[in-house]
Amino acid sequence: MGYQINGERLLQNLTRMAQFGLNEKGGIDRSLGSQADYDTREWLKSYWQEHLEAEPETDPIANLWVRHQGLENRKPLVIGSHHDAVPDGGKYDGAMGVLIATEVLETIVEQGIPLKHPLYAISFTGEEPNPYNLSTLGSKVISGRLRKDDLTHIYNRETGKSLEDTIKWLGGNISELEKARIQPGELAGFLEVHNELGRHLEAQGLHLSGVSTITGIYREEIRISGENNHAGTTMMPDRKDAFLALADFATGLNEIVAAYEDPDVVGTMGYVKVNPNEANIIPGSAVGIIDIRTCERKIITEIVKQLDALTKKIEDSRNVKLQRSVLLDQPARFMDEDIQRIVKENLVKMKEPENVMVSMAGHDAANMQLVTKAGMIFTRSVGGKGHCREEFTEDADVIKAGQLALDTILKMDEELP
Amino acid sequence: MGYQINGERLLQNLTRMAQFGLNEKGGIDRSLGSQADYDTREWLKSYWQEHLEAEPETDPIANLWVRHQGLENRKPLVIGSHHDAVPDGGKYDGAMGVLIATEVLETIVEQGIPLKHPLYAISFTGEEPNPYNLSTLGSKVISGRLRKDDLTHIYNRETGKSLEDTIKWLGGNISELEKARIQPGELAGFLEVHNELGRHLEAQGLHLSGVSTITGIYREEIRISGENNHAGTTMMPDRKDAFLALADFATGLNEIVAAYEDPDVVGTMGYVKVNPNEANIIPGSAVGIIDIRTCERKIITEIVKQLDALTKKIEDSRNVKLQRSVLLDQPARFMDEDIQRIVKENLVKMKEPENVMVSMAGHDAANMQLVTKAGMIFTRSVGGKGHCREEFTEDADVIKAGQLALDTILKMDEELP
Repeated sequence: MGYQINGERLLQNLTRMAQFGLNEKGGIDRSLGSQADYDTREWLKSYWQEHLEAEPETDPIANLWVRHQGLENRKPLVIGSHHDAVPDGGKYDGAMGVLIATEVLETIVEQGIPLKHPLYAISFTGEEPNPYNLSTLGSKVISGRLRKDDLTHIYNRETGKSLEDTIKWLGGNISELEKARIQPGELAGFLEVHNELGRHLEAQGLHLSGVSTITGIYREEIRISGENNHAGTTMMPDRKDAFLALADFATGLNEIVAAYEDPDVVGTMGYVKVNPNEANIIPGSAVGIIDIRTCERKIITEIVKQLDALTKKIEDSRNVKLQRSVLLDQPARFMDEDIQRIVKENLVKMKEPENVMVSMAGHDAANMQLVTKAGMIFTRSVGGKGHCREEFTEDADVIKAGQLALDTILKMDEELP
Repeated sequence: MGYQINGERLLQNLTRMAQFGLNEKGGIDRSLGSQADYDTREWLKSYWQEHLEAEPETDPIANLWVRHQGLENRKPLVIGSHHDAVPDGGKYDGAMGVLIATEVLETIVEQGIPLKHPLYAISFTGEEPNPYNLSTLGSKVISGRLRKDDLTHIYNRETGKSLEDTIKWLGGNISELEKARIQPGELAGFLEVHNELGRHLEAQGLHLSGVSTITGIYREEIRISGENNHAGTTMMPDRKDAFLALADFATGLNEIVAAYEDPDVVGTMGYVKVNPNEANIIPGSAVGIIDIRTCERKIITEIVKQLDALTKKIEDSRNVKLQRSVLLDQPARFMDEDIQRIVKENLVKMKEPENVMVSMAGHDAANMQLVTKAGMIFTRSVGGKGHCREEFTEDADVIKAGQLALDTILKMDEELP
């Protein structure tokens, strides 16, 4: 049988953490720098202190760490996820991974399981989109993707509070940011457990999976210049309606992407702004942001080529100008093959179907992959729901994922240098 | 030749009024209740006092009036327009009509032109869309379309200031609103001069026109309920993208309306709101406001029938729900036939082509038509520009419109009871 986690305790901790930021609709508001972010950290640190026989630490970007020493002088293994949430989000996204990391360590400490490597748990700062416009903040700093100069003039778009002050309040210190950096080769490996946030597992009748790749993400801002005009007096052929052009672009992108009929190729216009946005004025300008995801560079190239043709067509038919600029072009990130193999072997031992899949969402593991062997475990999201208060992973799956994480860490400890 | 206005003086006054609310882009910010609104009123009242030998008055909704007595005990004629402006608007919209009314009275006073009727000039309060969401406010109150109870809980959506306080600051008093009301039959007639705000006159090579009808305006709010979902993990066929549905509705409306190929039938979606409006979340809900204008009830009915079919089609293809509600269904308002005839006769005397046209924009005259014989004169808007800082009417057209207004008032005085 091997070592077993305490599933009940894991579920209790999940319920406990879900109280921080709980809103009247039953969702969780726990954005970076919120009071709920602060309170969650205080609770987690005191839990770790009490149950893991170790002093929690806060690094300069305010990632929370707790360190368990190994028997040998090896590089550390790290397990964790994030505790912040999207606005009105659910209780699994991030929190489940942090509490599974906690449960893995607590089982190891409680049962005196010998490890060759040190094992650290981490709860990352600001993984989700937030009012500072910085997602996966903690892991980007660790992996060197963000430096001190990138973070000194960032302000909360709602409150105006500086990121520096927020990080300080959370126990970090941006002026010492370099100390949070982890160099490639400093760690032995990283594991993150997360809910899938999509319906791929459910569609295949699966409950758990390893992850092979984290999708590439390509984003463009589309700025359309037409002409503000009176909605009554301007004859239809004279119009330069920027919103109609943006509407054409959104529906055109949708058609282009849907034609692939591939669950791992998606495209969305999620952000839209129209000016002057008055019922009686023809929109003179409009802005949209598109987000395209696929693991394959070739497909991005194909789609962008089709968007170029679409752009020309819209400019001609709507009598407007389109300006497109690339906001993000993040390549796919490949998870470590050894960890993929270990996860698959452990799934077989648990009598679960062997499976690895593409993650269509970004995760801290994508940044950790830049500095160490990184792997992920996904749990089924019922109905595919993610980034909303209705997200749900069955209790049995949470417990199985916790056990799979323990087994995987023990095997990583055994096999990795 | 008859009596002549002073064209130079009229142009000077137009330049003078354009200083109030002038912004650094050369546009005019003079929204209801702004400091520029207040300052314009102070200037106009002092100008009237000095030049018209009469004491200006402010009615309970803060419309500005100046009264010139007639020789006989007749009902009054009224001439005027509004002095407020759309954000970043131009110097002609409203202001030209007020200053032509001023010039007509000043000419009459200066040259001692005998009138049988009393002649009043008016500058209406809050004609333009404004942060209180009340356009043609002053004329709606005069004509009884808005009562005290409609106005007691209205707040500026940007500053939170109550409409009551704003009107009080401008010299009105909402608690005495009924005293601003004019009953049908109390006046002998009303005339408003305005720039066209469209390109119909320019397209026909005309500079001036009478107005036959003020278009009907039909507005609907379109609320779309889809489902917020992760822009990466949600497969294309699983999506309920509310924004794509709104985009389909906007482009569908455009097609339906454009098919009429009639300059007096237009439709627009000028207001759009998408939720949650994040680049990485599929929009779960979206709201749009459509505005359709035509003088013919039959055409509105036809268009709405086509929108019903469009709604069903979008609900099926995008897997969303549409809720449509009528925000406004204002019938076309017909200008008085006698005044139309007088304007046409005067155009012929001025050796201008005889013309009357549909106004595709709403105007205070549409409300005044409810209580008296109302007429309008339009000037060419160069390039059809309206509701923007680039709006322009040539000096010669401003002067001709002033002369046409004087001639028309003198003829109305002669002919109307």
